[in-house]
Amino acid sequence: MATRLTDNERAAALAELTGWSLVEGREAITRRFVFADFTAAFGFMTHVALMAEKMDHHPEWTNVYRTVDITLATHDAGGLTGLDVKLARKIDRAATAAGAD
Amino acid sequence: MATRLTDNERAAALAELTGWSLVEGREAITRRFVFADFTAAFGFMTHVALMAEKMDHHPEWTNVYRTVDITLATHDAGGLTGLDVKLARKIDRAATAAGAD
Repeated sequence: MATRLTDNERAAALAELTGWSLVEGREAITRRFVFADFTAAFGFMTHVALMAEKMDHHPEWTNVYRTVDITLATHDAGGLTGLDVKLARKIDRAATAAGAD
Repeated sequence: MATRLTDNERAAALAELTGWSLVEGREAITRRFVFADFTAAFGFMTHVALMAEKMDHHPEWTNVYRTVDITLATHDAGGLTGLDVKLARKIDRAATAAGAD
């Protein structure tokens, strides 16, 4: 099972993951992505869904038209793990590929 | 443009749309759907996304693993319209097809 990041590891991850921030009152990270339209936003979500299923590590996410808000945490570990950092990096690449603002 | 439902029309729609309820403090309807797993949930979302894009009427929705929470409203009309009722019916059929609990 993935183990929780130490304070130092978490700080290093946040420094690297531009645009991601800690969720208030919870050990989780979040980022908003905005696309050209719904089709671009949902295309991005589909890309992320396939990656997440392959990793067996899934985002919590909300979509309103062209905006997608994503929160990552590892429930089994009760906080952030390397899985979240890995998925966040993949999500960032998928967002760039989908033309996120 | 779609026009807001009257009070009577809204009451009739809610009576028909089993499982949907009004959102607190907002003229919108919401329903939670629970599936077998993430793949079933996201398959359902993909089905809904294609229908929504075709209607040019999109849900606000949140997915956490096998749960999908959907809220419908017509922003241009400032409340509920026939478009929301039509999309809700389509969503219900898609959820049944995807094996929602």
